[in-house]
Amino acid sequence: MTDLEQLGERAQSASYTLGLLATTQKNQVLAAMATALIAHQDEILAANAQDLENPQVPTKFIDRLRLTSERIQDMATGLTQVATLADPIGNVDRAWRNEAGLMIAKERVPLGVIGMIFEARPNVTVDASALCFKTGNAVILRGGKEAIHSNQALVKVLRSTLRAHEIDENAIQLITDTTHATAEKFMQLTNYVDVLIPRGSARLIQTVLAKATVPVIETGAGNCHVYVDKDAQLKMATDIVINGKVQRPSVCNATEKLLIHQDIAADYLPSMIQALRDQGVEVRGDAATQAIVADVVPTTDEDWGTEYNDLIIAVKVVPSEAAAIAHINRYNTQHSEAIVTDNYRAGKVFQQRVNAACVYINASTRFTDGFEFGFGAEIGISTQKLHARGPMGLAELTSYKYIIDGDGQIRQ
Amino acid sequence: MTDLEQLGERAQSASYTLGLLATTQKNQVLAAMATALIAHQDEILAANAQDLENPQVPTKFIDRLRLTSERIQDMATGLTQVATLADPIGNVDRAWRNEAGLMIAKERVPLGVIGMIFEARPNVTVDASALCFKTGNAVILRGGKEAIHSNQALVKVLRSTLRAHEIDENAIQLITDTTHATAEKFMQLTNYVDVLIPRGSARLIQTVLAKATVPVIETGAGNCHVYVDKDAQLKMATDIVINGKVQRPSVCNATEKLLIHQDIAADYLPSMIQALRDQGVEVRGDAATQAIVADVVPTTDEDWGTEYNDLIIAVKVVPSEAAAIAHINRYNTQHSEAIVTDNYRAGKVFQQRVNAACVYINASTRFTDGFEFGFGAEIGISTQKLHARGPMGLAELTSYKYIIDGDGQIRQ
Repeated sequence: MTDLEQLGERAQSASYTLGLLATTQKNQVLAAMATALIAHQDEILAANAQDLENPQVPTKFIDRLRLTSERIQDMATGLTQVATLADPIGNVDRAWRNEAGLMIAKERVPLGVIGMIFEARPNVTVDASALCFKTGNAVILRGGKEAIHSNQALVKVLRSTLRAHEIDENAIQLITDTTHATAEKFMQLTNYVDVLIPRGSARLIQTVLAKATVPVIETGAGNCHVYVDKDAQLKMATDIVINGKVQRPSVCNATEKLLIHQDIAADYLPSMIQALRDQGVEVRGDAATQAIVADVVPTTDEDWGTEYNDLIIAVKVVPSEAAAIAHINRYNTQHSEAIVTDNYRAGKVFQQRVNAACVYINASTRFTDGFEFGFGAEIGISTQKLHARGPMGLAELTSYKYIIDGDGQIRQ
Repeated sequence: MTDLEQLGERAQSASYTLGLLATTQKNQVLAAMATALIAHQDEILAANAQDLENPQVPTKFIDRLRLTSERIQDMATGLTQVATLADPIGNVDRAWRNEAGLMIAKERVPLGVIGMIFEARPNVTVDASALCFKTGNAVILRGGKEAIHSNQALVKVLRSTLRAHEIDENAIQLITDTTHATAEKFMQLTNYVDVLIPRGSARLIQTVLAKATVPVIETGAGNCHVYVDKDAQLKMATDIVINGKVQRPSVCNATEKLLIHQDIAADYLPSMIQALRDQGVEVRGDAATQAIVADVVPTTDEDWGTEYNDLIIAVKVVPSEAAAIAHINRYNTQHSEAIVTDNYRAGKVFQQRVNAACVYINASTRFTDGFEFGFGAEIGISTQKLHARGPMGLAELTSYKYIIDGDGQIRQ
């Protein structure tokens, strides 16, 4: 048995006891973890300093890698917030008596062992551990090599808190060998890992999808569109596009494309594009857009499938709502799409026909988020249709089992 | 674009319109398919005869491959039954207003394109087509080469019925190239297929799991146990074990293993084993069982993980309920497990701690079935924890999307 298999077996073994913990006990442990993070912040910051001193860390990673007292406090606050959330484990979705007289209850249970693969953000270590623990799942963390010292220090604090509460510390484990070869083996640990959730860049997620034999929940890619219909309130449209593009351009629910009905394009696009430029956005446009605003950057075919994650937007003039929907269904990542319209039928058709996790009428794509949805937490945003779609909170980290009570029934 | 990719694109294109069909219209088409199968039974039987004449078809496949007027009538009845079931598409699981004032509705939608991979049973062609059509999914069927003429004849009838109702016939497509190379490419058609559901032997399912990059729902493996506790009613235990083992030994919910508490083993096993033998069952036993009934076939380690699908059972004497649970969680396939006991605590502990889709107190494992559960249909029995667990009916062939109505909300 390899080291990795042993780690998997320990996680599986821990998962059997985790599913049985009372909610009260889990909440006490989460509160104790928060206290312990603050108590051990000097060691955590020292470990983080070691990571930051590594000359091989790319400059663009420095900000997301850096921990401060304030960020550790945020992690601790996150832990106490997870403690306040309702525990989905043990909920009965429905129960019924079948024709043979069996009482069948569909009861929420943990998934088992969750594998998290992520990059240089140490806060994911604490977030993911908290959400998995609250839902009775064991977690195996594989963070980026840039954050290895920080992650080790954080996991040490979390595990010692588990031990202090007489809970199997293997509920939370970190893979310390950060080579690609070990990551690949981890993605194929089907005997021990029930699901993999990658969090990070599109490249990371594509790698996991290609290499994994463990089931993966695909997250995070967001090529989101706003379609401004001919019956839109134009001031509202501008607010929604600006908010979607500018408020936080690096995230997956940011707006990346603007589609506009041809009937209003000539009147509306000059002011819309000016408003974007006033916010520092680079505006790219198709031929029809160029004909209206001559100095936009011409788009290429590649633009339509690209998630910029930056202050860039591409604009396309469409002849009809149907053309907008066809374009979206061809190029989107099934994340979040919005129409701006006051036409009842146009709105309903858009919501029915667009293939995406979240389809908005008259609102910013930026609302696709576990906290905005009221879930109180978020482990990621699923862009697949199996198991979970859209923002994933605690409920999406559960499975179910059928608990069946009989009194001697046999099948006829 | 390869032939297979074209087929995938046609399925995806059909899926966009299928999701919009009214329930009434879908039910009319299902009824018309039933009528058409009866009307065209001569062609179907002729095609089936061609398959049966193939000297390369293994003898054991003949029965499942053979169609008769009666079997075609059964398929037609199945289609009309699916028409009577409630349509899950468009159901709203829940809807709420978030803090920003958005109305968020979680609405059931089709998965999209479902790939079915199966062996020599032509009835799967009709069953799967009906269930996928009712739930607004396009289906791509890849049946075994032994049944290719039968499947082509059946699919021809189903597609012509779709055409006659002006529905995209590519809602139902059959892969006619039955080579392994094409099957493998099908399993990796991630751009067009949303989920693969293999139905058939353990070997088929393992191959699909190993080769597929499309998400798979694992079905059908059932190494099911009955644990007879020391507080069991012994007559009930015997009935449950006999029913689980004998009623239909070839299926996945049949009982394969008998675990028995040591306190009652010496008194109970002789009559239990005799009852099994009276039904023609080969009884294998561990050392403790051999000490009680000398002439059982000695078990090897391999027995505990084996699904016999035959009139064979293996018996193990365990020192405690905890030992029974540990054995089950080590060797089971997470399908169906039962305890026979009149002890409240023993029953609850078993249901909580056994890791399986269906956990019974005092009932036969044979009840794990979509029809017995009252789902009115079954596309398979999932043995994984992601998306669906246990019997899968129409609801398990759906995903959801969030339909969000705003009036100009932007994120703060």
